[in-house]
Amino acid sequence: MSIAMPAPDSRVIAQGGRIVAALRAVLPADAVIDDPQETRAYECDALTAYRCPPLAVVLPRTTAEVAAVMRVCSDLGVPVVPRGAGTSLAGGALPTADCVILGTMRLNAMLEIDTANRFVRVQTGVTNLSVSAELEPLGFFYAPDPSSQLACTIAGNIAMNSGGAHCLKYGVTTNNLLGATVVLTTGEILDLGGPELGPAGLDLLGVLCGSEGQLGVVTEATLRILPRPEGARPVLIGFDSPEVAGECVANIIRSGVLPVAIEYMDEPCLRAVEAFAKAGYPDCPAVLIVEVEGSKAEIDDQIARIREIAAALNPVEFRESRNADEALAIWKGRKSAFGAMGRLGDYICLDGTVPVGQLPYTLRRIGELSRQHGLEVANVFHAGDGNMHPLILFDANKPGDLARAEAFGADILRVCVEVGGCLTGEHGVGVEKRDLMSDQYDPDDLTIQMQVKDVFDPAWLLNPAKVFPLEASAAHRARTVSMAAAE
Amino acid sequence: MSIAMPAPDSRVIAQGGRIVAALRAVLPADAVIDDPQETRAYECDALTAYRCPPLAVVLPRTTAEVAAVMRVCSDLGVPVVPRGAGTSLAGGALPTADCVILGTMRLNAMLEIDTANRFVRVQTGVTNLSVSAELEPLGFFYAPDPSSQLACTIAGNIAMNSGGAHCLKYGVTTNNLLGATVVLTTGEILDLGGPELGPAGLDLLGVLCGSEGQLGVVTEATLRILPRPEGARPVLIGFDSPEVAGECVANIIRSGVLPVAIEYMDEPCLRAVEAFAKAGYPDCPAVLIVEVEGSKAEIDDQIARIREIAAALNPVEFRESRNADEALAIWKGRKSAFGAMGRLGDYICLDGTVPVGQLPYTLRRIGELSRQHGLEVANVFHAGDGNMHPLILFDANKPGDLARAEAFGADILRVCVEVGGCLTGEHGVGVEKRDLMSDQYDPDDLTIQMQVKDVFDPAWLLNPAKVFPLEASAAHRARTVSMAAAE
Repeated sequence: MSIAMPAPDSRVIAQGGRIVAALRAVLPADAVIDDPQETRAYECDALTAYRCPPLAVVLPRTTAEVAAVMRVCSDLGVPVVPRGAGTSLAGGALPTADCVILGTMRLNAMLEIDTANRFVRVQTGVTNLSVSAELEPLGFFYAPDPSSQLACTIAGNIAMNSGGAHCLKYGVTTNNLLGATVVLTTGEILDLGGPELGPAGLDLLGVLCGSEGQLGVVTEATLRILPRPEGARPVLIGFDSPEVAGECVANIIRSGVLPVAIEYMDEPCLRAVEAFAKAGYPDCPAVLIVEVEGSKAEIDDQIARIREIAAALNPVEFRESRNADEALAIWKGRKSAFGAMGRLGDYICLDGTVPVGQLPYTLRRIGELSRQHGLEVANVFHAGDGNMHPLILFDANKPGDLARAEAFGADILRVCVEVGGCLTGEHGVGVEKRDLMSDQYDPDDLTIQMQVKDVFDPAWLLNPAKVFPLEASAAHRARTVSMAAAE
Repeated sequence: MSIAMPAPDSRVIAQGGRIVAALRAVLPADAVIDDPQETRAYECDALTAYRCPPLAVVLPRTTAEVAAVMRVCSDLGVPVVPRGAGTSLAGGALPTADCVILGTMRLNAMLEIDTANRFVRVQTGVTNLSVSAELEPLGFFYAPDPSSQLACTIAGNIAMNSGGAHCLKYGVTTNNLLGATVVLTTGEILDLGGPELGPAGLDLLGVLCGSEGQLGVVTEATLRILPRPEGARPVLIGFDSPEVAGECVANIIRSGVLPVAIEYMDEPCLRAVEAFAKAGYPDCPAVLIVEVEGSKAEIDDQIARIREIAAALNPVEFRESRNADEALAIWKGRKSAFGAMGRLGDYICLDGTVPVGQLPYTLRRIGELSRQHGLEVANVFHAGDGNMHPLILFDANKPGDLARAEAFGADILRVCVEVGGCLTGEHGVGVEKRDLMSDQYDPDDLTIQMQVKDVFDPAWLLNPAKVFPLEASAAHRARTVSMAAAE
């Protein structure tokens, strides 16, 4: 393991039995798991290189049960790691040996559907896809659509401010979250926001969204829902070079056409996808899939404009889908890209985000760094909002290869920050990019963020060792404690 | 004055000369104003019923000068009231007698225009309209467009999370603010956000936007800019009753058509507007102006769908603009509505916001309350996002009439909160709605908001007596101080 984790609190480990008993006293019998065989299922999330079984797992069904768990853990000084479906690619739900995992999957009720006011209220353990599935017969959908949407929960989406291919047009979770019920470590329950335009006073909902379980556990959420568009149609555009494809993305955005999605795939990715899914993609250095939606007139109009923008850049191919089958064929390869890459070997998936105009430069720099580190990289990502997902290929069985891949990844993320971008678009910081936060923020910025955490979670029990650099957070905690003593 | 203000700090008043001298030591001579003749210009904002000359006024030109002011005021314990153009309708920039007004109007440089990456960087004293004016030759614009856009500054827009008629499609300030340079009371300078997708770690930009000068002074901002649409076209629809007009709004929103603006005017407003601007509006109980934009094909398509939705509700008129003159005629009355109302007498303009589906009910309740309080009310507002602006008419020369109007206004805002809405859509809480915050939030919610303020402004020097109920904030401060003493 090349990312350091703090030593577990031995006092907490020592009183493990007492902690489990206290949790059993406030929860139904089936809601507390401490059998090591069973807790093992929670030892990692989708960043599988890092694992650690927790002390215990709780699976509450109500906000009141979550509050009871928080009070017990707070009283006994036990860290709590909230967990949605465990699909975090950044180790956002990685346990520590002294923690209780608070799983949200049984908080799975749809509470209210209101199409006239365009919102739903859900318990946050519902999966992302099930929200849209419930809405489909009514002609509505919930916009954020991460690749993991079949499994991932709204709780995890809120914690990570998740995105997806449709975010270019509809925004990420923070743009679609209207309200939340949050349980703090004290057991206090806050109701933030609601189905109106915006909150009066300080907008705590905004800072909660994307806070990666650092501030509280969100048990209920009010989500904006949208009417399903009449239709959608993708086009596929092939280019001679990554830079020209990047230029095409920037030109589309600049022109004012707003596609629902602009996806990018480079040659290594296209090769893997062809071998796996035989999607019939052209053989060229870079491909864009651009999807537009709306009424037939709107779709025709937008595609005509995209055709014109692309034509000025001499594409090697411009393939328009004329029916549902052709649309499916265009998406087939993209949707299987991560699976296809997995067959090539181990990979790390990055999530750096850059201003769209910096895509050509960033793609060039990634190529240079690939040669420098001697590791292959494939690019497949949401180009329209500059959210890059370079996949660094390595061999997990080769000693030192993971560490080399991580060093390469860190260099790519530093380039993203350098051009005015940031470490993460939708995966979150987690443990993975925790120590790179010092490249993104100066110490004053980090201190203020940590002070805001102090307000919500004064004892720092929530989701330890994530988001903030270990050294900086340890120093901050020591300072806070000594200041309180001096006062 | 029926809204109480706290007594000024006599120790601060007593050392007025020393404070001014300290400010003069760090700023150019013309940047400090303490002549009572001149400071009088800053004694109120657009909530003109409330006035109080400040101790002094500073007009810094750079972030460094703002930081110097903050350090001086922090050292001497002087409250600071940040002020944009003073167009707040909620008393958001109302001075206290012991405060220094920090005016942002000389922070007026355009720093960077980047159309490829769709952002501008500005000093925040630039006016809202000047940003779009700079961008016009390049084919771009900045979306939030409050009615006061000719005068109001980006600083004020960020503080109040300002909206405007175009917000229905493009969102309010928080949806268009990408980054900010903020000076804290300590003089510390934070750089938040930037032109990328979203921040890593805690999203402090979100909580800053709309914080009404409670957390820091924003000196520079990165704003998202948009390509100008090819065209725009309004339609005017007249209805038999306010409720049916409200239903039409809800049905349009529900259908998935997304107009740029849906504006509502009721009979009292239409009467005033006709007398003043002779816009040729129909004589009926409620009128909607719905504007759509895009390419010609998109516009035609959207108007056809709106026509169909309206037809189902038997409108008394459906007037489509066929050219620029007709479009102007449709907007003429709406744009002069506030001026027209002003000729009828004094009024208070409210800003409560409700879920769109609650518009019919809320309009009916406002009518009932009007009869109950014996005061006339006119409604003219951004209906598409439920942002209501009831205008309560009263006579400032009649003793007790202002207080009656304020009581009526408070009742309307309570109805907004009751139906799931909130106190303010775009004007902010200010002093005006400060004490109603207890109707919107329970004590725990308010405490967390105040604790977040503690992080940014521990001595509570920034913009005193706004946003938080006076009693609640005094109690919070007393508790914080006694806890620090006990530790």
